[in-house]
Amino acid sequence: MDIIVLRPGATEEDLRHLVKKLEGKGLNTHISKGTERTIVGVIGDTSRVSEDEENAIRVMPGVEDVMRILKPYRLASREFKKDNTLVEVRGRVIGGKKIHVIAGPCAVENRTLIMDVAAKVKEAGATFLRGGAFKPRTSPYSFQGLGEEGLIYLQEAREMSGLPIVSELMDARDIEVMAKYTDIFQIGARNMQNFRLLLEVGLIKKPVLLKRGLSSTIKEWLMSAEYIMSGGNHQVILCERGIRTFETATRNTLDLSAVPLLKQITHLPVIVDPSHGVGKWDLVAPMAKAAVAAGADGLMIEVHSNPEEAMSDGEQSLKPDVFKKLMEELKLVASAIGREI
Amino acid sequence: MDIIVLRPGATEEDLRHLVKKLEGKGLNTHISKGTERTIVGVIGDTSRVSEDEENAIRVMPGVEDVMRILKPYRLASREFKKDNTLVEVRGRVIGGKKIHVIAGPCAVENRTLIMDVAAKVKEAGATFLRGGAFKPRTSPYSFQGLGEEGLIYLQEAREMSGLPIVSELMDARDIEVMAKYTDIFQIGARNMQNFRLLLEVGLIKKPVLLKRGLSSTIKEWLMSAEYIMSGGNHQVILCERGIRTFETATRNTLDLSAVPLLKQITHLPVIVDPSHGVGKWDLVAPMAKAAVAAGADGLMIEVHSNPEEAMSDGEQSLKPDVFKKLMEELKLVASAIGREI
Amino acid sequence: MDIIVLRPGATEEDLRHLVKKLEGKGLNTHISKGTERTIVGVIGDTSRVSEDEENAIRVMPGVEDVMRILKPYRLASREFKKDNTLVEVRGRVIGGKKIHVIAGPCAVENRTLIMDVAAKVKEAGATFLRGGAFKPRTSPYSFQGLGEEGLIYLQEAREMSGLPIVSELMDARDIEVMAKYTDIFQIGARNMQNFRLLLEVGLIKKPVLLKRGLSSTIKEWLMSAEYIMSGGNHQVILCERGIRTFETATRNTLDLSAVPLLKQITHLPVIVDPSHGVGKWDLVAPMAKAAVAAGADGLMIEVHSNPEEAMSDGEQSLKPDVFKKLMEELKLVASAIGREI
Amino acid sequence: MDIIVLRPGATEEDLRHLVKKLEGKGLNTHISKGTERTIVGVIGDTSRVSEDEENAIRVMPGVEDVMRILKPYRLASREFKKDNTLVEVRGRVIGGKKIHVIAGPCAVENRTLIMDVAAKVKEAGATFLRGGAFKPRTSPYSFQGLGEEGLIYLQEAREMSGLPIVSELMDARDIEVMAKYTDIFQIGARNMQNFRLLLEVGLIKKPVLLKRGLSSTIKEWLMSAEYIMSGGNHQVILCERGIRTFETATRNTLDLSAVPLLKQITHLPVIVDPSHGVGKWDLVAPMAKAAVAAGADGLMIEVHSNPEEAMSDGEQSLKPDVFKKLMEELKLVASAIGREI
Repeated sequence: MDIIVLRPGATEEDLRHLVKKLEGKGLNTHISKGTERTIVGVIGDTSRVSEDEENAIRVMPGVEDVMRILKPYRLASREFKKDNTLVEVRGRVIGGKKIHVIAGPCAVENRTLIMDVAAKVKEAGATFLRGGAFKPRTSPYSFQGLGEEGLIYLQEAREMSGLPIVSELMDARDIEVMAKYTDIFQIGARNMQNFRLLLEVGLIKKPVLLKRGLSSTIKEWLMSAEYIMSGGNHQVILCERGIRTFETATRNTLDLSAVPLLKQITHLPVIVDPSHGVGKWDLVAPMAKAAVAAGADGLMIEVHSNPEEAMSDGEQSLKPDVFKKLMEELKLVASAIGREI
Repeated sequence: MDIIVLRPGATEEDLRHLVKKLEGKGLNTHISKGTERTIVGVIGDTSRVSEDEENAIRVMPGVEDVMRILKPYRLASREFKKDNTLVEVRGRVIGGKKIHVIAGPCAVENRTLIMDVAAKVKEAGATFLRGGAFKPRTSPYSFQGLGEEGLIYLQEAREMSGLPIVSELMDARDIEVMAKYTDIFQIGARNMQNFRLLLEVGLIKKPVLLKRGLSSTIKEWLMSAEYIMSGGNHQVILCERGIRTFETATRNTLDLSAVPLLKQITHLPVIVDPSHGVGKWDLVAPMAKAAVAAGADGLMIEVHSNPEEAMSDGEQSLKPDVFKKLMEELKLVASAIGREI
Repeated sequence: MDIIVLRPGATEEDLRHLVKKLEGKGLNTHISKGTERTIVGVIGDTSRVSEDEENAIRVMPGVEDVMRILKPYRLASREFKKDNTLVEVRGRVIGGKKIHVIAGPCAVENRTLIMDVAAKVKEAGATFLRGGAFKPRTSPYSFQGLGEEGLIYLQEAREMSGLPIVSELMDARDIEVMAKYTDIFQIGARNMQNFRLLLEVGLIKKPVLLKRGLSSTIKEWLMSAEYIMSGGNHQVILCERGIRTFETATRNTLDLSAVPLLKQITHLPVIVDPSHGVGKWDLVAPMAKAAVAAGADGLMIEVHSNPEEAMSDGEQSLKPDVFKKLMEELKLVASAIGREI
Repeated sequence: MDIIVLRPGATEEDLRHLVKKLEGKGLNTHISKGTERTIVGVIGDTSRVSEDEENAIRVMPGVEDVMRILKPYRLASREFKKDNTLVEVRGRVIGGKKIHVIAGPCAVENRTLIMDVAAKVKEAGATFLRGGAFKPRTSPYSFQGLGEEGLIYLQEAREMSGLPIVSELMDARDIEVMAKYTDIFQIGARNMQNFRLLLEVGLIKKPVLLKRGLSSTIKEWLMSAEYIMSGGNHQVILCERGIRTFETATRNTLDLSAVPLLKQITHLPVIVDPSHGVGKWDLVAPMAKAAVAAGADGLMIEVHSNPEEAMSDGEQSLKPDVFKKLMEELKLVASAIGREI
């Protein structure tokens, strides 16, 4: 059911023209003439009316506005699937009672680093290891990642620690090589609307961790999840990582209210990345606790053995001992809201 | 110490002119000629250089940029005062270990409502009562508050419940009447940069709860606190209530990272208003818990006996029984981070 | 006519309850049951339904959303008044074919400055003189204006140059003194939602130049105009002065698309302040031309005899000769779109 | 030259550690001890210090802030190349006195449409034809473009009209096929930070029209241009198409002040897309004129023979006769500022 509002000066001819067009799409109408406006209720399966068709109706003579009642995403909606989606990876379940912590360096800089961090975050209680082999960098002159070499080190770290691997996919041409070494494919914020890439990961059998775009609405984010799901891959994990606002005191503004809102409107698991959200290591711990209290199903936290020497994101990385202390504190917060970590 | 950067083509004459101008203000300079730019370090008490003088320097010939090292606020800064400011109101202390909850309806609609809500939030554990007698409304056709009649009902509610009163001041001409009935003066988001009003509340002896403006940076917010403090009133409580972003799924975007950041850079207490922050009652509980986990010194929560009949903000108000349940849950979260509520 | 959308699981009882409530407000309903949602069309004079009542309906059981068809402002809308409002001030008409230029310094710093600038902008073709006597400043330590002394100088400048005066009102208590010396009252961006001040200027007989708030939507801006008009003062001029976005390369982002949009939906004159919009004097000229090309009825431009010594906003002020050259260029652009300046 | 600010409590040891680290990078230092802060000026070729190294310095003990004086882009800067870059395509020069208009439908829907529009925009004075064969759509259920079939129709339209073709590249795997039919490769807003794609178009010999990202700063936009240029392709055209703000009355907020600002800081041509900028066809004409007045080197305008039937963006497309009238008006505005169209 959609609603079409006519302009004050719309003619009977405009109305007939509109009704005919809708009937041509197999839809019925319900006309209400108010004192100031005429309203056309559209009856039938309007979910088949694309956004394009909606926009075309918007410019018909006499039309003031079109209001859609149904959401543009379907597979991702809570209405489509009532129960929470559980994403299972090597025996770990994301989206259930247990809150998972994905930890590791921003980039896999060398073998020593990733082995060291993997051992330490494992010991502190992390359940997944993160690390970038292909790195999206705003400058062409910055370190762009080790590529497959980095993936090989990640695999070694997994073998040693037992932690499944989360790593970012930047280009459809890397899917094959990434699939050999990685357990969860991350789609970064800057690729949230790289629709061709979304279509491709919709065809694979690995879970996808979909980061929210820098200035994406929640609706657009779920539309990007829908892209992946429409290809057949329903193992999508949403990751809030801060949005762009006018505030410059923090790197981004972490939108924690997205967490409980998403839990209402979608069945997909929702995790939070406070490291990118705030961009300052000494704000990560309070925001990680806040994310858990808000209901997140997991956290993604940057940890580096030596942030001063980090090749990227050093200023937002925790040292292993700080991370370990945080894990202890998070257990208390999780327990306070009836979950575990 | 400030830094002035000269443009690539700046002349020796430009530099002499600049140095002379600075010396005229009693400041010394330190000149570093790099390969691409000349930098002038300004030595002396540059805190006396106003923003206006800084801007005037910015347009001098040869000047590319002026970078200020010192913050524009002083009294509000953690450097000025290391210890947390404790605001004491009728025996209650805001800014210490105990987290305070200010609860009540958006507006004092009538005597029955405020007495009923006061009794119920008191029983649930709230320590302050909120309620607006003068209401800032975006429409001139909306309910504008009961004025002094509302204040009288608030006073009655205080006598009955023992809860001190927080109410909004909209106009300097109301200070006298407000002072008779109110314990904490609230400055609303839309008045955060009503500088004349800030100057006036700087002269009174009541604590001021200063809400963050809809699109204010943290720096501007602290400058508004500085306005109040510069008049002699150091009893300022900061209240994060959500900022305006592109996201429309929530009323505002609650910026919880402001909480730990403020705790670093200012000594003033920081509280959070999740009701305005999200604008939907069913998101208030998770965000209230998140605010506590992030380190807030207090919460401000809208509670209404019958949100369906509320004259304002019904959609974001909790019913008393929902509020009571939330208070129980908040105690657990507060305890998990070593505080109490 | 409003539209109320029920949730998928809404019961017959919910619907009856809702219809009864609406009937209690003297409204009729029109119910359309679709396959996925039930829609209630509300018939009758829904403009009497306040935003508060709308919000109360929003939390009724079974209600998913309320969509308003009518705009919340009435007096300010083009539907209420088809013809452009013409604001006449000392023989000058704002809102007609002629584009007016309001020029002058940010603040009246002293008598010499304002007399000098008045003479020069007059000669260059400006038709109004601006200058602040009461200055809203983000820092309590900045120059706050000369107060009545400044107003006296403005009056002298008007006598000498013949240019009517535009000056900012910050506080209702200054209305009387301002009215003695000023022709147009400016309400600054930070006071756009100072509702008490808006109500007061609604009662006077002077035109009001209402600047857009830093992060105000066009709808909110028109609601603030409605506040003034609802008091009886229909002489309102809207002034776009840039909005706050994530971009930091300019002081604000000048939203020129607001100009043609406003010309469609309101009958009030619309002017543009490129000086505050961009905050850099060397971007003012192109943006002034763009504003004229976009259809603005006027411009407000900061001019200072000696920007290097300005007590405020020096970096965005034009020198008189630069302003004179701009006026010549603006004449050509105005003529190209069939207007004059 | 960079500036490093030490915290108030930084020790001599911190300072020695920092100086040693900088010397290890071949840089010298200049230390200024103020009353409140110590400042370290860094001398030498700091352009070789990557953003990563800068961030690593930011977390060293005792460091409060790092301020970079030099811009992170080099090839794209006006300092690197004083003269305007002229992009020549089939005898047409973008970036010179003549303002170019790129017109056509959002998507190539079928052969008839593109042939018809090409003929009409050519006749009205457009100098390039646009049309998408690969379409980025927010919904997986929307029309995604005709692919190579669309490119073939574009080529036919070029042969018939003589207008060179601008079309969007979405995926590096399409470069070869696109290169066969297209004259200018467009990188869309959602791919502005698809760094792998930028690297690839840096290696080809076709001009690239780089749209600004939905929430990209001007600095980030130039960094993306730098990505392309660093690969050897210096034929980059920047296209402002509106940024995302809180305002919902227009599709985006067209940031025209970016135009004169870019003309100062970069030598690359700058064009404006008012169709996406505002999203409503009846606002396109005033904003197109404003863009020309602001100094744009070109315009990109959506034109469709029958917007009511458009498969995408119908609500922002001009009909050919409206476009023709606009072209007449644009000539007058261009002439008023000393350019031609």
